[in-house]
Amino acid sequence: MSRWKPNTKERLERAASELFAERDFDDITVAEIAQRAGLTERTFFRYFTDKREVLFSGRQALEDAFSDTIASATDSATPLQMVTEALMNVGEFMETRREFARKRQSIITANPELQERELLKMEHLSRVIAEALIKKGVTEPTASLSANMTTAIFRIAFAEWVVTQDTMSLNEHMKNLLDQFSTIAASGQ
Amino acid sequence: MSRWKPNTKERLERAASELFAERDFDDITVAEIAQRAGLTERTFFRYFTDKREVLFSGRQALEDAFSDTIASATDSATPLQMVTEALMNVGEFMETRREFARKRQSIITANPELQERELLKMEHLSRVIAEALIKKGVTEPTASLSANMTTAIFRIAFAEWVVTQDTMSLNEHMKNLLDQFSTIAASGQ
Repeated sequence: MSRWKPNTKERLERAASELFAERDFDDITVAEIAQRAGLTERTFFRYFTDKREVLFSGRQALEDAFSDTIASATDSATPLQMVTEALMNVGEFMETRREFARKRQSIITANPELQERELLKMEHLSRVIAEALIKKGVTEPTASLSANMTTAIFRIAFAEWVVTQDTMSLNEHMKNLLDQFSTIAASGQ
Repeated sequence: MSRWKPNTKERLERAASELFAERDFDDITVAEIAQRAGLTERTFFRYFTDKREVLFSGRQALEDAFSDTIASATDSATPLQMVTEALMNVGEFMETRREFARKRQSIITANPELQERELLKMEHLSRVIAEALIKKGVTEPTASLSANMTTAIFRIAFAEWVVTQDTMSLNEHMKNLLDQFSTIAASGQ
């Protein structure tokens, strides 16, 4: 049962996501997560320090999605066009995981320590986006400002998307915010 | 020496600011701060848990400066006009404390725990600004988006202002960023 298999980490993440979406976070044990993934607790602890850790395992994938999309943008693309495309790519992927995202958010909202961690994650994401833009020739402070704007739009749209029961997709929420952003900027200092 | 006097907290803050600007943070003791303020250590500990706490004592004043400026804006002001005015008011006040700001920033940059605390402070400031805008009739998500933009501009401008040795004021840095913001927004999604 504990033999090495490919994608061990991904299997643990998937099992945890399923369980988090199905039941109360506090009632789920590491043993159950491991069992659902067909693995042992010991294997779980080779990848994660505790079950909370699994809630943040998507961090690297999220950062990569932003940097890769920006890196592959055409040279004529503006910072706003690059980050818009990145947001839309991320949103499309997230859309397939709405139930997990909803559950995850409610766990985080109930826990100040996890909120801080989420905030640090977003701060790091801003830096990753700024660096990706700089690699495309965007200068400072435009890179940092665009990056901060991007994570703000992502966070606000995400919070609306997981809380509301409406049929609007995450990308529709983000598009609305991108429009709002232009409206605010055009309204005069 | 420890009799009650008005503005005790402010005197401790001023004494600490002076010492932080003059010498190495690690070498300064609470006893020295209290002595400079003409007070006892015991009095210091009635207001602050430790000397780091003094670095964050301006938080309430900063939040108030933003909310009060927004609250007193004319009814026809746009969100961007309200936050611009608030930024300029805050910047003008900060300008008188550049040396302390510079020293404070270098202390925080060297300490991950203080960086987290600073980040939480900025997150709270965003919420305070959003609430002030909502009280003026701005709806969500415009209020949160404008608030996040405001703290992003404040943070980026502040970081440039304390690090660079140039003669540009904080307000000039912030005005540049406000212009950048409009340029980014106008460049098409």
